[in-house]
Amino acid sequence: MAETIQASYPVDDRNRVRRRHDRGAYDHATVHALLDAAVLCHVSYVIDGLPYCTPTLFWREGTTLYWHGSSASRMLRNQSEGQPACLSVTHLDSLVLARCGFNHSADYRSVMAFGNARLVDDPAAKAAALVAMVDRFFPARTAGLRQSSAQEIKATAVVAMEIERASAKIRAKGVGDDEEDYLLPIYAERLPVRMVIGTPEPCPRLLAGVTRPETLAGYRAGRLLEEAVAEAHAVTYPR
Amino acid sequence: MAETIQASYPVDDRNRVRRRHDRGAYDHATVHALLDAAVLCHVSYVIDGLPYCTPTLFWREGTTLYWHGSSASRMLRNQSEGQPACLSVTHLDSLVLARCGFNHSADYRSVMAFGNARLVDDPAAKAAALVAMVDRFFPARTAGLRQSSAQEIKATAVVAMEIERASAKIRAKGVGDDEEDYLLPIYAERLPVRMVIGTPEPCPRLLAGVTRPETLAGYRAGRLLEEAVAEAHAVTYPR
Repeated sequence: MAETIQASYPVDDRNRVRRRHDRGAYDHATVHALLDAAVLCHVSYVIDGLPYCTPTLFWREGTTLYWHGSSASRMLRNQSEGQPACLSVTHLDSLVLARCGFNHSADYRSVMAFGNARLVDDPAAKAAALVAMVDRFFPARTAGLRQSSAQEIKATAVVAMEIERASAKIRAKGVGDDEEDYLLPIYAERLPVRMVIGTPEPCPRLLAGVTRPETLAGYRAGRLLEEAVAEAHAVTYPR
Repeated sequence: MAETIQASYPVDDRNRVRRRHDRGAYDHATVHALLDAAVLCHVSYVIDGLPYCTPTLFWREGTTLYWHGSSASRMLRNQSEGQPACLSVTHLDSLVLARCGFNHSADYRSVMAFGNARLVDDPAAKAAALVAMVDRFFPARTAGLRQSSAQEIKATAVVAMEIERASAKIRAKGVGDDEEDYLLPIYAERLPVRMVIGTPEPCPRLLAGVTRPETLAGYRAGRLLEEAVAEAHAVTYPR
């Protein structure tokens, strides 16, 4: 129906949403929006045939994902061709209490992204990534910071992964009971949950006269973290 | 110093916290408390040599973890010996804005647990797990629900994993700059974030006179989700 062409990730056995496939999406817009609203991901690798699942901060630039990769750097070093990885992001939106155990559920928005993780070794690319690692969350912040030392740059491992396959899975329906169960005198509810920003805590050792920059105004107490994070991404990576 | 013996998970190359090892812990008390305060985990498996990282609801019973395992059930069926898995839980507590890029960080509390995942097939064990899957979060709730049908029980895959190795990793220090950087006129802060419960949304189709049971009182608007979840666990699994 739409006249615009919507870019999507290819679908195969690896990323096809099987269970509740009606909840799946593969288009760039849906997948990227969920990634860009997140701070934290979990990345899985295989090391010596065994799975590892590591939490880390990450960000997206086009169809490439970047993350802080110290835990994987031993594995990735000397592997210029990369190592298969799966990066997942989940926004939990509610717990759902239904009228039977089977229909208890949760509302959520999640992404699984697949590709080959590789260490960012090229000096210029790594320097750019270390700026983006901060500025993606706090636009233009790096320009006002003490510059990174060569030792710090060396000590920071950045991993990049071109997204080869990805899927989004979204449940947003609240209570969904079997039709006949609505006749039962059982309490059911959707219990919303949300990740919110608290009151910023300035460093107690700030020099006199140093105040919170206006660029951080989006990170205000009570706001949804995902809103501020998505907004920052749009500032740092304008379309 | 303490006269009590503190149970811990064994440590080897698989679960030893390498980077910032001072943030690591292996004792049951620390690991279990972080698990019991969570609703959501990410589980990694290896399928055909490739890693998968799947979000799911989970819970702990002693040193066994359980989760809803439909996405893994194809892989796990007919594998009575189990399949290596890594289950991770992360509580994000803050974003940390430092005076240089390198010291930007986050406060968090995370667990990685390793073991062999297996399908819960025994009918009695599975029936018990399906009760716990609800009651662990909402104590005693199952007793008041419409009973599960044989078809529902069959359609629900439950995975169990005895924790063989586990580690907790905690950062809780806020801004931590290099000593000389505190002399710079740069703004730095700890930006706390937290997962809170919203206003419960009763199902619009509740029968007249059906009210929210007192057992759900812990899940009240504005409370930290992890507090309510940990409290519920303690009720369902008293020491």
